[in-house]
Amino acid sequence: MAPSDRAVVVVGASAAGLRCACRLARLQPGWQVGVVEASPVFSYAACGLPYVLSGEISDPVALRQTHYQAVRDARFFAEQKGVTVLAGWRATEIRLAEGLLKVQSPEGERQLRWDELVLATGARARRLPGQPEHPRVRAFHRWDDLEPLLQGLRKGEIGRVAVVGAGLVGCELAEAFGALWGAEVTLVEAGSAPLPEMLDAEVGACVARHLETSGVELRVDSPVRRLEASDGGVTLLLDKGKITTDIVVVAVGVEPEVELARSVGARIGPTGAIAVDERLATSIPHVWAAGDCVEVRDVVTGTPIFRPLGSLANRQGRTLANILAGRGDAFPSVAGAVAVKVFDVNVAATGCTETRAQARGVAGRSVWVTADDRAHYWPESERIHLKLVYERGSQRVLGVQAVGKGEVVKRIDVATQLLARGATLGELAHVEHAYAPPYAPAVDVLSVAACVAQNQEDGVEAAVPTTPLKHVVDVRLPDERQNRPAGAAWVEELSVAELREARQVRTAPRGLVVCERGTRSAEAARLFLDRGGARYLGGGLQWREAALSGDAPSPPGQSAKTDGATQDSATRVRD
Amino acid sequence: MAPSDRAVVVVGASAAGLRCACRLARLQPGWQVGVVEASPVFSYAACGLPYVLSGEISDPVALRQTHYQAVRDARFFAEQKGVTVLAGWRATEIRLAEGLLKVQSPEGERQLRWDELVLATGARARRLPGQPEHPRVRAFHRWDDLEPLLQGLRKGEIGRVAVVGAGLVGCELAEAFGALWGAEVTLVEAGSAPLPEMLDAEVGACVARHLETSGVELRVDSPVRRLEASDGGVTLLLDKGKITTDIVVVAVGVEPEVELARSVGARIGPTGAIAVDERLATSIPHVWAAGDCVEVRDVVTGTPIFRPLGSLANRQGRTLANILAGRGDAFPSVAGAVAVKVFDVNVAATGCTETRAQARGVAGRSVWVTADDRAHYWPESERIHLKLVYERGSQRVLGVQAVGKGEVVKRIDVATQLLARGATLGELAHVEHAYAPPYAPAVDVLSVAACVAQNQEDGVEAAVPTTPLKHVVDVRLPDERQNRPAGAAWVEELSVAELREARQVRTAPRGLVVCERGTRSAEAARLFLDRGGARYLGGGLQWREAALSGDAPSPPGQSAKTDGATQDSATRVRD
Repeated sequence: MAPSDRAVVVVGASAAGLRCACRLARLQPGWQVGVVEASPVFSYAACGLPYVLSGEISDPVALRQTHYQAVRDARFFAEQKGVTVLAGWRATEIRLAEGLLKVQSPEGERQLRWDELVLATGARARRLPGQPEHPRVRAFHRWDDLEPLLQGLRKGEIGRVAVVGAGLVGCELAEAFGALWGAEVTLVEAGSAPLPEMLDAEVGACVARHLETSGVELRVDSPVRRLEASDGGVTLLLDKGKITTDIVVVAVGVEPEVELARSVGARIGPTGAIAVDERLATSIPHVWAAGDCVEVRDVVTGTPIFRPLGSLANRQGRTLANILAGRGDAFPSVAGAVAVKVFDVNVAATGCTETRAQARGVAGRSVWVTADDRAHYWPESERIHLKLVYERGSQRVLGVQAVGKGEVVKRIDVATQLLARGATLGELAHVEHAYAPPYAPAVDVLSVAACVAQNQEDGVEAAVPTTPLKHVVDVRLPDERQNRPAGAAWVEELSVAELREARQVRTAPRGLVVCERGTRSAEAARLFLDRGGARYLGGGLQWREAALSGDAPSPPGQSAKTDGATQDSATRVRD
Repeated sequence: MAPSDRAVVVVGASAAGLRCACRLARLQPGWQVGVVEASPVFSYAACGLPYVLSGEISDPVALRQTHYQAVRDARFFAEQKGVTVLAGWRATEIRLAEGLLKVQSPEGERQLRWDELVLATGARARRLPGQPEHPRVRAFHRWDDLEPLLQGLRKGEIGRVAVVGAGLVGCELAEAFGALWGAEVTLVEAGSAPLPEMLDAEVGACVARHLETSGVELRVDSPVRRLEASDGGVTLLLDKGKITTDIVVVAVGVEPEVELARSVGARIGPTGAIAVDERLATSIPHVWAAGDCVEVRDVVTGTPIFRPLGSLANRQGRTLANILAGRGDAFPSVAGAVAVKVFDVNVAATGCTETRAQARGVAGRSVWVTADDRAHYWPESERIHLKLVYERGSQRVLGVQAVGKGEVVKRIDVATQLLARGATLGELAHVEHAYAPPYAPAVDVLSVAACVAQNQEDGVEAAVPTTPLKHVVDVRLPDERQNRPAGAAWVEELSVAELREARQVRTAPRGLVVCERGTRSAEAARLFLDRGGARYLGGGLQWREAALSGDAPSPPGQSAKTDGATQDSATRVRD
């Protein structure tokens, strides 16, 4: 049991700090619970800021309100929650021995007594090396970052924007600047595709193409070498060329605020965030930490990772309140589920990418699936492209990434539960879902992906959807073949039935077997398992179309669409 | 390893039978795999039939097509899948000793040799006791059931319809008849609310109210005593009154087709369906069964249940193919996840209802939550009403039911994964989800529900949302109180801050504490945990509003809305 009287001071009035303080005040009404917050405005939904910029949310105050329209200010927390928030006071020094926290504001300095100290100091926007201090170079992370941009847009001073970093916020901003204001947006990314921490390149390619068709100029493989700001504009110097715009928003992620923790010798983990155990205790007794300033444990690799997500921060806040109140609770490892809307495409992922698995020395293998999110005959069904990464040998599921106009987030949430419990392909193949035509197909995409992976373990090997096409064997129906595989040098057209017959007399097709979604081509490839094997295009031509721009040129002089009447016989080959 | 040459005969060409046959043909290309099917039309998506009736799907052929528009007929299965389907042939006799199956068609009789026999005989529409054979009394289960109804609607012969049974199909039909055709629909249900096998009454009440506001006349607690059909119309005799319509569709569920299985002495389980083990083996060697004719094991109670769902049938088909081909596979227990669209409300559930748990002797306890499906400030966010049932003591999650315009199916799919793994409230409270404002709130409704249940275990006890209101303590803000709790005899208005102060001097409120969604009222109730305790209204007034018709009369002479200016003081009481 927890003692009946105790003073708890929380530093930081965002998700983790406030949820911790409010629950603690409920669980231990006799305790003194206070929160110190440097900003006058706090407890706002930071994840909603891009949507104020885009105009989807018309009044930023909505981000500070409860569902019953109360503004979450210091009075709200005092009256509704019984929690004192000292807003506008900055914590400057922890005196461990005396159990004191020094805080400062324009009003002066105070000392707060604590028995337990909670660091919920959050994270701040990362800056580029040598990033100049200039009103044309901005971050987009805090409440205060919003208004200057809105002002500039309203006054028509921002016609061209460069966003540096195609991460979650960068992608949201690329949409936001264009949607309401019609600004010309260039999105600059050092990696080879958008969302490089979340998606492997061939999945990111689908996001890239969607950004481009939505009017965003995307520059990948483009680290910013220098950034020059003047009263007339900003210039970004890249390896190839430069970009001049009215304003630059640097959205290259956040870094944890660890100075207070460091000042008392609390251990900082390998990610640069505060190291805590599953009780959210730092290495210093009676000093705890939660939210965007701490690192968490990756459920797949077991290693510490930095995942500054509002959902985790919130949950950590409650967990820590339970722990401080003497209840058994612990913050579990995380799969790192994440989602982002990019224009009208949904993007979500959980667990490890193949790239990250490889970097950690985990032998990952992948399959790709294109499927409908609902029964395919349901008029509103939309497409999903989903990549499943699993471990060779153990067949443990390592990660899932999905992109499409279809409902991808549901699948990622379900996969997260399986990942978190170490599920194998067999368990994923048996995933149960609530089926009805308006919501899902009878066999859902996660189960399909697991089956495809099991087939791959049998030897039915998938090729990466964006793999260059040379010789392909097209097993689609004649009607479908009018839409020819772009970029393929040599197309052999054979039905599955023909391949089945041919199976007795011929060796495996030399080309990559293709169809619309990868299902039929995988079935065709299986026919040749005992005859040398055949590979098929994972995710099918539909994935390819979503990821690659359509005008990829065919090599000159070979099977172009212009062959006209002679094309069919010219490209229809048997051996 | 499986032998290299074997004859497998599958009886029934629907989801389970065909998926089994097709996969087996791929895994064992040397085997002879044949399917016998009594109907000439098969492999159609039966779950889509109501949406052809509603006009949402314009051409029924869509239900028989693949995503690449190939019609799944016998030729398709022969050419694309290498599987022979004998359509129009009825299996009449199994000769166990000889390994033969007798089949019959207008063309005559044949005998098929088998080494392994798969019964995928499906289910048929249940009939009412004494149900007359008459063209005005119809089922809605098979392909052939569709056309006569469409004809009647097109010719204008069906202006009034009674649907008997407010189960999944009954609710879909209630919408279908009205949506495109404007028919007057009466939905007749023997239970006390719609979807009685899926939902407890206070959740079903939300569906009932939505059906009524959508123009359906709903008659609950109305078992059909007799059904009289004549050339002029049909009359349903109920306990209270009778209904006369142009046509009656009986949608009281399905029953498994077990005659063939029974004829060879295969064990029939307590549900009336074929008993199979997790390898889908019947009690007769070399006779297997899958799909709507078998019973499955309930993951919550461990008992056999009958769950004729296309998703399970499909998965069983693949599982059985794996097993027959000598691979290790097993069909796991099921949570029974299910979803149905009722007009523009989404309804889904998984695991046990409280009613069913009680019937099985499991001590269930419940909480109710009203929440937004996305960040509450997201303009397209919609409401969800969710009930969580858990086991007293062990705190194991037993079931979840949800209804609302919001995305409920995602939550049910996630809960299914937790249920299937025996998760407790603690694990559900820590459920990880992909958070972004367009998809989910930072704390998702499942986690909220688990927290609410943990609070209930602390003593913060929820009342059923549809509980009759007498004395209530309204802790909402003054603005919100204009919408007064309907039906309450005595309303005390006190803010949470006032209650917090009063806590020192007063005992617990005698009334039920209420607010919009149950969050604030639960917090207020907790203030009095050590002073006798207070109960709050689970799911809040918003659940009540969704479930009960607004014109529930207040008892005469007490705090009605007409009290006008004196109302506030009259109902504002302190003690």
